[in-house]
Amino acid sequence: MSRYLEIAQNISDLIRAGSLRPGDPIPSIRQASTQHHVGNGTVVQAYQVLEAQGLIEPRPRSGYYVRPVRDLPDVALEHPSLVKGSGEARLRAILGDLTASKSTLLGSSFVDPTLFPMQALKKGLSTSMRDMGHVLPALGCFLGLPKLRQTISHRYLELGYSVPADEIIITNGGMEAIYLALKAVTKPGDLVLIDSTMFFAGLQLLEELNLNRIEVPTHPGEGMDLSQLESTLNQYPVAACLLMTNCHNPLGFTMSEEKKSALAQTLARHQIPLIENDVYTELQFDLRHIRAAKAFDKDGLVLHCGSFTKSLAPGYQIGWVAAGKYVERIASLKFVTSLGTNTPTQAAIAHYLQYHSYDRHLRRLRDAMQSRLSNMMRAIENNFPKGTYYTRPKGGYVLWVQLPDKVDALVLFDQAAMINIGIAPGPIFSASGRYRNFIRLNCSPPWTPAIDKTISWLGHQVRQLM
Amino acid sequence: MSRYLEIAQNISDLIRAGSLRPGDPIPSIRQASTQHHVGNGTVVQAYQVLEAQGLIEPRPRSGYYVRPVRDLPDVALEHPSLVKGSGEARLRAILGDLTASKSTLLGSSFVDPTLFPMQALKKGLSTSMRDMGHVLPALGCFLGLPKLRQTISHRYLELGYSVPADEIIITNGGMEAIYLALKAVTKPGDLVLIDSTMFFAGLQLLEELNLNRIEVPTHPGEGMDLSQLESTLNQYPVAACLLMTNCHNPLGFTMSEEKKSALAQTLARHQIPLIENDVYTELQFDLRHIRAAKAFDKDGLVLHCGSFTKSLAPGYQIGWVAAGKYVERIASLKFVTSLGTNTPTQAAIAHYLQYHSYDRHLRRLRDAMQSRLSNMMRAIENNFPKGTYYTRPKGGYVLWVQLPDKVDALVLFDQAAMINIGIAPGPIFSASGRYRNFIRLNCSPPWTPAIDKTISWLGHQVRQLM
Repeated sequence: MSRYLEIAQNISDLIRAGSLRPGDPIPSIRQASTQHHVGNGTVVQAYQVLEAQGLIEPRPRSGYYVRPVRDLPDVALEHPSLVKGSGEARLRAILGDLTASKSTLLGSSFVDPTLFPMQALKKGLSTSMRDMGHVLPALGCFLGLPKLRQTISHRYLELGYSVPADEIIITNGGMEAIYLALKAVTKPGDLVLIDSTMFFAGLQLLEELNLNRIEVPTHPGEGMDLSQLESTLNQYPVAACLLMTNCHNPLGFTMSEEKKSALAQTLARHQIPLIENDVYTELQFDLRHIRAAKAFDKDGLVLHCGSFTKSLAPGYQIGWVAAGKYVERIASLKFVTSLGTNTPTQAAIAHYLQYHSYDRHLRRLRDAMQSRLSNMMRAIENNFPKGTYYTRPKGGYVLWVQLPDKVDALVLFDQAAMINIGIAPGPIFSASGRYRNFIRLNCSPPWTPAIDKTISWLGHQVRQLM
Repeated sequence: MSRYLEIAQNISDLIRAGSLRPGDPIPSIRQASTQHHVGNGTVVQAYQVLEAQGLIEPRPRSGYYVRPVRDLPDVALEHPSLVKGSGEARLRAILGDLTASKSTLLGSSFVDPTLFPMQALKKGLSTSMRDMGHVLPALGCFLGLPKLRQTISHRYLELGYSVPADEIIITNGGMEAIYLALKAVTKPGDLVLIDSTMFFAGLQLLEELNLNRIEVPTHPGEGMDLSQLESTLNQYPVAACLLMTNCHNPLGFTMSEEKKSALAQTLARHQIPLIENDVYTELQFDLRHIRAAKAFDKDGLVLHCGSFTKSLAPGYQIGWVAAGKYVERIASLKFVTSLGTNTPTQAAIAHYLQYHSYDRHLRRLRDAMQSRLSNMMRAIENNFPKGTYYTRPKGGYVLWVQLPDKVDALVLFDQAAMINIGIAPGPIFSASGRYRNFIRLNCSPPWTPAIDKTISWLGHQVRQLM
């Protein structure tokens, strides 16, 4: 790791641990350079990183300070909440609007496509096709191209744990991975334990599979409350858990490794499979990769779902599931649901990972996401009324915003939709329709005057709705 | 249509209609050239086509004759047969072996990959990526690239009927199309009416979805018996039909348009949806394209499932469903099962269809399939004992072979597997485990001494098993 990144990490740790608190001054550039035995330039670089992360801010003629932050949003759920049957049709209609939205990306979860190495991937596509020639429609490869499965297995090693290639089945994106995993470990009518909140396509999927949902309180900064998890498992016949443990969408937390280890142990004690939706894992801002719960799984109970859609190749629809002891079951499901995954894009991704620096691309991608999140935070502070809180994501590109109590995000959604602004209202992230005064904002697009205007308009509407 | 193809069609019609019967001489080249007002060369070309199709054969110094054929295989099922719950685990294990088979293609349904324009597709992939640039990860395109949906709609027009682009949803291959269609119109425990026989991945899919199956007698030359269909619909609470109407796999028949029209009317009367598996439609040998039942659907009850896997781009995994009145339902299912279909290969196929002659490629592909089927027929006649019958496919590349009564195809399968020969035994094509003395052979690979030896070995084993 470069020295400036180490220094940035060091200060960021102090802030996150609470040793440096909002409003506190941080060492001047001269002090820091003496303390760390580096030149001024290195400290400046470190402080630029921290500023981009929204952790510190310069004050004219007085140096750098820890950025004052509004508190994290509330945990809107205090006790587990069980939901059977199907949810509100109204919310489903909103999903349709959001995914069809032509106007802004704010309400969607699409990443700004200019952030990806499309040219390099394209070259990979051509080169790999030349190499493979007629072998392309690979016979018997319905589990995925062996080369890509090996490359993913190798990536796990780089991230600090071991997952054999045999356990990895390539899927049509992360969504199919989650779909197959749910099909593999549940049957209609079963109860699935989930975070409160959860990404909306996942909630729709649970409904579609006729699965009942039990939402467990989830802290926007720390993740699921494990004691509530334990008591829920004791009380209800939970068939499986579906959780996002890194760069949670929409909450932004990354669960610590200690907590993940405890989670894995709890589930092993109850012999309950965990579908770990980890499609954002490469978007972690922390410079030391925080491993998934999969790393702590001893019984093969974790079905770890990954994807290249958010980190490398949107539109290629290449994901995977590392299926633990369910690998045979998933293989058989994959065979009947789609027979296989398209080979050219698999080959292109394998080629990219072999010949390009995935890590260098990821650093740029994360930097862009951090600085864009930071822009959005600043715009919210400037435009939204008191009583507005937002998350400090540990990765990814979405912000979860709590509006003042009386504001109804569904009303705001309707008003915004009329002028072609898409925002994702809180209730679509909850099986039980909670989070009426919350919205999720996609911060991946570059900052433009149009977005500036949009946020200012939204702030104005929120004041009107109070 | 070229003159020689017209002449070939003319004679093939006479043979198929029974006006010219096995063993009959056909007009000499001189007679035919006078009759059709063409040169001798044109007639020679026509006869070459017919010979490749296995319809006629030259006899030394005595001209051409209609090829003597063994009778078609039996209709092994006389009455509809209802199957609930799950089938034999043994048969599922066989599927695993066949798809994993490293030795021969004979047992699989993969087409010889050298028969496809992989170079042109590759160019399409590069060019379309250049054109589209950053738009590639198309936002909100989870129903498929608009350009490809339009191209497919246009192809329907070329084939003689109209299907609007709005009704077409792109899927991860034909298998996902069928999967989504089944999910859209059934719920677990429902009864689905199917052909006897049916492709084995389809049977496995029905089991996977907990659907009960009712097999209706299907003639290997004509397709399903419509009066049996009608009485079955009157007697049982059928939720949907899943049928293959063109180049049936494994039987090889193409249902006539008259029969398809009657089928559509019958189903409309009962208001029962038809999932029409039409992934082989472009492989029809008949020079006049025979339209799908979809062409006769007035109520939006037909979910027409297509694919480019067998006709253009294996490995690309691009299929579609033209979903009739179920389009909203399919869209919502597609969203949760895989969010979308990979865009680069969609763009490549759309590009190919726009700038290359799909029809010219298809002519070559069908010619190769016909001549390879013909080789296999000859080899069976030379090597298999009396009491062996086989189909005369109207398209595609598989042959359905009835062995003498006492031969158990599962025993033959086991013997063959031991020396790395894969054959597909009859019972895996039947929900009720019928067709013990049948096998399906994939005839798409080019003829080699190894295949010659394999067929001779199989013929020998069959004699031993009698």
